[in-house]
Amino acid sequence: MLNQPQRLSMTALAGIADILPGDDLADILAQAIRSNDVTLSDGDILVIAHKVVSKAEGQVVSLATIKPGEEARELAAQLNKDPRKIEVILRESRRVVRAFKHPQQAEGILIAEHRLGFICANAAVDESNVGEDNTVILLPKDPDSSARRICAALEETFGVRLGVVITDTFGRPWRMGLVNVAIGLANVPAQVSLVGDRDAFGRELAVTIPALADEIAAASGLLMSKNGKTPAILFQGVDWEPAPSSATDLIRPQKEDLFR
Amino acid sequence: MLNQPQRLSMTALAGIADILPGDDLADILAQAIRSNDVTLSDGDILVIAHKVVSKAEGQVVSLATIKPGEEARELAAQLNKDPRKIEVILRESRRVVRAFKHPQQAEGILIAEHRLGFICANAAVDESNVGEDNTVILLPKDPDSSARRICAALEETFGVRLGVVITDTFGRPWRMGLVNVAIGLANVPAQVSLVGDRDAFGRELAVTIPALADEIAAASGLLMSKNGKTPAILFQGVDWEPAPSSATDLIRPQKEDLFR
Repeated sequence: MLNQPQRLSMTALAGIADILPGDDLADILAQAIRSNDVTLSDGDILVIAHKVVSKAEGQVVSLATIKPGEEARELAAQLNKDPRKIEVILRESRRVVRAFKHPQQAEGILIAEHRLGFICANAAVDESNVGEDNTVILLPKDPDSSARRICAALEETFGVRLGVVITDTFGRPWRMGLVNVAIGLANVPAQVSLVGDRDAFGRELAVTIPALADEIAAASGLLMSKNGKTPAILFQGVDWEPAPSSATDLIRPQKEDLFR
Repeated sequence: MLNQPQRLSMTALAGIADILPGDDLADILAQAIRSNDVTLSDGDILVIAHKVVSKAEGQVVSLATIKPGEEARELAAQLNKDPRKIEVILRESRRVVRAFKHPQQAEGILIAEHRLGFICANAAVDESNVGEDNTVILLPKDPDSSARRICAALEETFGVRLGVVITDTFGRPWRMGLVNVAIGLANVPAQVSLVGDRDAFGRELAVTIPALADEIAAASGLLMSKNGKTPAILFQGVDWEPAPSSATDLIRPQKEDLFR
């Protein structure tokens, strides 16, 4: 007897050109969906690297325009980093969580709490894949709004109910290597509560709350190569229910966090 | 013009019955692969929830057999937990990282460094899905060895080159919700170094090291429902190269960790 297994597929949309400030990203993604061999259905989820969202929204800063303040110059000396980049990081941050440089390292690391609440290296200010020297790229101003706007445009274009997850790539306490996490959400719940569900033996599962949006984000890293050529991954077959959501729901409140 | 997108699929193997101590898990998985509509190819990766591995290996402890020591009794009083369960957790641990109970919470939380080095709640000692009351389930004694044994058996059965990732479900500092992480590996690299690769604009990517095994583990959570009925997920289409690996490579050395 053959079983009917549950399946899920991920498709890296090929052929997305470099994104420039002012580009209509939803339209570019719609074209990519059409030019790839995919048919959208209700419940499909599009995962988008924040860099193309940020670039389309003009969230790019030329370091030549930045005059570092005193705090930035002090941290830059301590960490051996460009003081203008530190200044941009500080402007994006609520606070510096850690600033540290090993004596053997050429450059130190700055962990900051981003103004949106995410705790990550350099307040998510990034140099890769911007296309110009001496520019840095920020997170979108309001990644949930960006996700909702793109989602609504694609839903209208294709006549289906969709979800959108915008990702960034974060390091992690305790574990090596980088994974993608969700920083903007449209329709996709941040977490799925299994509270009240029962396990295979009928016992109630009290505290199992999978971080659905981060599972999707991490999975997207398997196809979202860092060389920047596949910034959008289509998920088909995920079992989920649309809900009002925000990626900031994934931020652990400081008073509940045993780890800071 | 149609593009040729890169695709990846995940299949939850249906029809795996409850696993008992002494079961030949590799054989059970081979039967599940045959009874589901899948054909294995070189490079396929099987992701397995550690609970079925632990159960097959007899890593299950009846709390009736446990006499808690003084440290366990003290922590149990502080956290309002079963002292026998605390005793098992301490036996599985190198050290307690945090023991904490909010006044409003019925039961506190114990973060421990597992003897294998993983930092997680309750040293990964778990109550769900064991099938008997008053038993707890531990991690496999050597999850990398378990993964390699299962992988080698399946490779011989099906005549293909495979990878195996054994997972557990961990909470995370700074972020809400649970994700699956890799705790045992066969052939699948823990991390993929992109050092020396270039981004879309030809700039060298200095420090981008995706945690490949954790990306796969987190993705598996999308199909590995917590009710325990789908403990094995087949990944097809992942771009990877086999390498000698260990899930302990994902543990950030304490001296490099800014977060503890």
